[in-house]
Amino acid sequence: MLRLRTALKRPLSILGLSSPTATGGLLLPPAPAGLHHGVARTRGLHDAADVTKKPPPTAVPDRLPFSTVTREDLDFFRRILPGRTITDPDLLESCNVDWLKSVRGSSEVLLRPRTTQEVSQILGYCSGRNLAVNTQGGNTGLVGGSVPVYDEIVLSTALMNRVLSFDAVSGVLTCQAGCVLEDLSAYLEQQDHIMPLDLGAKGSCHIGGNVATNAGGLRLLRYGSLHGNVLGVEAVLADGQVLDCLSALRKDNTGYDLKQLFIGSEGTLGVITAVSVLCPRRPKSIHVLFLGCETFEHLLKTFQLCRGMLGEILSAFEFLDSECMRLLNTHLKLDNPIRACPFYVVIETSGSDERHDEEKLHNFLEEATTSSLVTDGTLATGESKTKALWSLRERVTEALTYDGFTYKYDVSLPVESIYQLVTDTRAHLGGRAKSVVGYGHETGTST
Amino acid sequence: MLRLRTALKRPLSILGLSSPTATGGLLLPPAPAGLHHGVARTRGLHDAADVTKKPPPTAVPDRLPFSTVTREDLDFFRRILPGRTITDPDLLESCNVDWLKSVRGSSEVLLRPRTTQEVSQILGYCSGRNLAVNTQGGNTGLVGGSVPVYDEIVLSTALMNRVLSFDAVSGVLTCQAGCVLEDLSAYLEQQDHIMPLDLGAKGSCHIGGNVATNAGGLRLLRYGSLHGNVLGVEAVLADGQVLDCLSALRKDNTGYDLKQLFIGSEGTLGVITAVSVLCPRRPKSIHVLFLGCETFEHLLKTFQLCRGMLGEILSAFEFLDSECMRLLNTHLKLDNPIRACPFYVVIETSGSDERHDEEKLHNFLEEATTSSLVTDGTLATGESKTKALWSLRERVTEALTYDGFTYKYDVSLPVESIYQLVTDTRAHLGGRAKSVVGYGHETGTST
Repeated sequence: MLRLRTALKRPLSILGLSSPTATGGLLLPPAPAGLHHGVARTRGLHDAADVTKKPPPTAVPDRLPFSTVTREDLDFFRRILPGRTITDPDLLESCNVDWLKSVRGSSEVLLRPRTTQEVSQILGYCSGRNLAVNTQGGNTGLVGGSVPVYDEIVLSTALMNRVLSFDAVSGVLTCQAGCVLEDLSAYLEQQDHIMPLDLGAKGSCHIGGNVATNAGGLRLLRYGSLHGNVLGVEAVLADGQVLDCLSALRKDNTGYDLKQLFIGSEGTLGVITAVSVLCPRRPKSIHVLFLGCETFEHLLKTFQLCRGMLGEILSAFEFLDSECMRLLNTHLKLDNPIRACPFYVVIETSGSDERHDEEKLHNFLEEATTSSLVTDGTLATGESKTKALWSLRERVTEALTYDGFTYKYDVSLPVESIYQLVTDTRAHLGGRAKSVVGYGHETGTST
Repeated sequence: MLRLRTALKRPLSILGLSSPTATGGLLLPPAPAGLHHGVARTRGLHDAADVTKKPPPTAVPDRLPFSTVTREDLDFFRRILPGRTITDPDLLESCNVDWLKSVRGSSEVLLRPRTTQEVSQILGYCSGRNLAVNTQGGNTGLVGGSVPVYDEIVLSTALMNRVLSFDAVSGVLTCQAGCVLEDLSAYLEQQDHIMPLDLGAKGSCHIGGNVATNAGGLRLLRYGSLHGNVLGVEAVLADGQVLDCLSALRKDNTGYDLKQLFIGSEGTLGVITAVSVLCPRRPKSIHVLFLGCETFEHLLKTFQLCRGMLGEILSAFEFLDSECMRLLNTHLKLDNPIRACPFYVVIETSGSDERHDEEKLHNFLEEATTSSLVTDGTLATGESKTKALWSLRERVTEALTYDGFTYKYDVSLPVESIYQLVTDTRAHLGGRAKSVVGYGHETGTST
C-alpha cells in the first residue's frame, strides 16, 4: 500500500495508478460533527472487474449517530421541493456512485433545491432532525468526496444554475453554485471574457464544487488560484443560517476575509450557494505546443526557458509521461502527434496580438530545439487543432479508467522532486500495479 | 463630518481630504480583547498647525483594563532582549506618532525582537501579565492603525529583516516580517524576479505590515491580491503560541487555509513573524504612459480600451485629478509633463519583448487619441524617466501632508461610481475643506 501523508488531500493531479489487485485506500479523518458532507475517506469498494471486494475492516469509518429519514421527513421535503424530492432508486444510483466507480453510498433521498432559501430550509430542518447531508455538485471528484458514505441525504446543486450578474467593466461574474463550468465559459465567451479556471471535467463540474475543493486546473499558472479569483461566497451553514460574503469588489478589506475558509473546505463548513468570480478578458490569440523531452530534467529546463521567453503570454504548462501516452493510444485510440519520447509537454499561450505571439513562440522553439531540451514538437492554432492537442492531456484520467481499477492521487510537491514520486512508486509496487503514470502541471510563478 | 460606512476600513487609495478645520474622524469598533494591536480608531489629534485640538469627546475609546508596565516587566524584557528594550522617550517618539502626524500614543516601551521565538516569549509574558501590545512595522499606515492608542507596548518588527530562502525555480520567497518592501525588491531583482506588490511607502513599509493590512498597491491589476500571492504565514498568537502556516507550495489544500484570515487582519489575530510570497519573473521591458482625459467617463473608457489593446502587458492603471496635480506643483515643485486636464492617468506595461510592447503601445495611443478619449500624453522608458512619471502618482499622499491637516480615506467602490464620491464630498464640504482630491487605481480584471 502506498503511504502518502496528509498533504495528499486534494491538490494537483500528478499521479495515477491503475492496479488489478487493489487492496487499500487513502485514510483521512472523518467529517466533523454537524454537517456530514462528502469528505474523502476509505470505505467499501464498488463492484468492478478484478477488484477484491473486502476493504481492510478498520478502514471504514463508523456511521455517526445521525437519524434516518422518515415518512414525515419526506413529507416536509416534498412540501418545500415539490417534484424535486427524488426517492426513485434508479434515479438515485448515479448520485450514490462516484465518477471513478470506486465508492458507493446508499442514500435514499436526493433533494434538488433551486434557491439559497430552499437550501437554508433544508439544512435548518436537517439540523433540527439530526439528519446527515452530503452536498453534491457535478459528482466529478476523483477522491470519493462527492458521494454519501452511508445513507446521507444528497443535496444536489444541479438546479441552482443561474447566472446572477456579469459586469463587463470589472469582469466580475456572480452566479449560483450549480452552474456548470463549461456553461459559464460559453456564457462569458459571448461577453469577451473567460473563466479564470479550466479543467478536464468542465462539461459536468459545478463552480460551487470547484470552489469547495479549491480546484486548480489548467489555468492556474496564468490566472492564479481561486483564493485570488473568488471575490465572494454565499453559503448556508449547517443550522440553515445564510452567510453572505458575496462581495463583487476586487479588494474588500472590511473585517476578516471569511469566505477564504470556504475555498477548499470541501463542504465541511456549509453549502456554497453562490459565488462571485473575477474573470479575465478573452485572449485574442491562442496557441498550443506539444513537445517531447528525453528526461524530466530537460522538461523542467524547458519550463524555465518558456517562462523567460514566452513570459506574459504563457498560460499553461502541463506534462504527461510515455505511460500516459500508451494508455491514450490503447484505450482511446488517440495518436501521438510527435515522435515517441519519455516525456511530453503541452504549452498554451494566450495573448492579445497573434503576430507577436507567433514570433515569441518561434524564438522559444528555436532555442529549445537547438539546445536539445526538446527533441520533437508540433504547434497548433485554431480551436479544433488546439483542442486535439489539449485532449492528450485532458483525457489521461479517462484513459486510466479503462485500464483497470484506478488509484488516483493528487499531490503538490516542489517541481524538482515531483516526478521522483512516480519513479519511487513504480519501483515500490513492481508487478503489483498494472501501470503507474504521472501527469500534471508545473505551477511556477505567474508571469 | 464625512459619513462613510465600515466599507471604509482600509481599502484602495481613492480619496484624500485636506482640511484647515478638521473636527471629526472615523469611528470604528474598538480592538477585540486580548491583543490590543493597532486597530484604526478615533482619538485625540496630534498637534498640527491650524488644528482644533479637541476631538468629539465620545470618539475616543476607553483604555481597556490592561496592566501598566512595571520595573519587573522591564527587567524581564531586558533579559530576553538585551539592548533591544527601548525606554528612551526620544527614541520612543517616532513610534508613538503616525506618518501623517494625525494621532499620538504614549507608549513607554519599544521592544525589538529578532526572532519568532522572541516574539513568542514577549507575547506569552504580556498575555500572562495582561499587558497590551501594539505591533508596528514601518509605521507608514495612513489610518492611524500602526501606533498605540494609550500606553501599549510597541513590538517592532524592524530587526526581523532576514530573507529566509528564495527558490528561483518556483519564484517563492520566504522572509521575516520586518523586511522592507524595497529591500526585498532589490534582493529579487538580482534573482531576476520582482515582488508581486509595490506601493509608494516601499522604502519604509514592512512585508509583514503589507500582509497584515492586505495592501493592494500598484501591481494589483497585474499580479492580483495578497490572498493569491501569499503562500504562507507564520504568526504568533496572543498567548505566545506559534502558528506555522509557512507553506511554500503554490497550491496547498491540506485543511482550511487558515493563513488567509491573517491577511488583512491588522494584527488582531496575532503577530505575523514570517511570510512566503509567490514572486513573478522580472519583466524585460517596462514602459510608462502619462495621459490626460477630459472627463472621468473618458478615463474609464481609456481603461477599457487599454485592457483590450495592451492585454497581457498592462501592469498598472492609476489616476489622479487636477487638484492632485495642483498640490504636486505647489508643494513638491513637480511639473505637469503634459497639457492641463481634469484627469490624469498613469499606465504601466511590463512585457518580455521590447519591440512587441512598443508596437502595442503605439497602436493603443493612436486609437485613444483619434477617438478623443485622451487629449495629451507622454511615453517613457528607462528607469529614471519611468520613475519620474510614477512619482506624480506616488507622491500625491506626500503633497497632501504639506497642504494642511489631512483626512485620507481608502475606499473600494465599483469603478463606475468611484469618482462620484469625490464630487459628492466636495459639494458636501464646500468651503470647510481646503481641498478634496481623488486618486487611485482601477482594479479591473487581470489580463
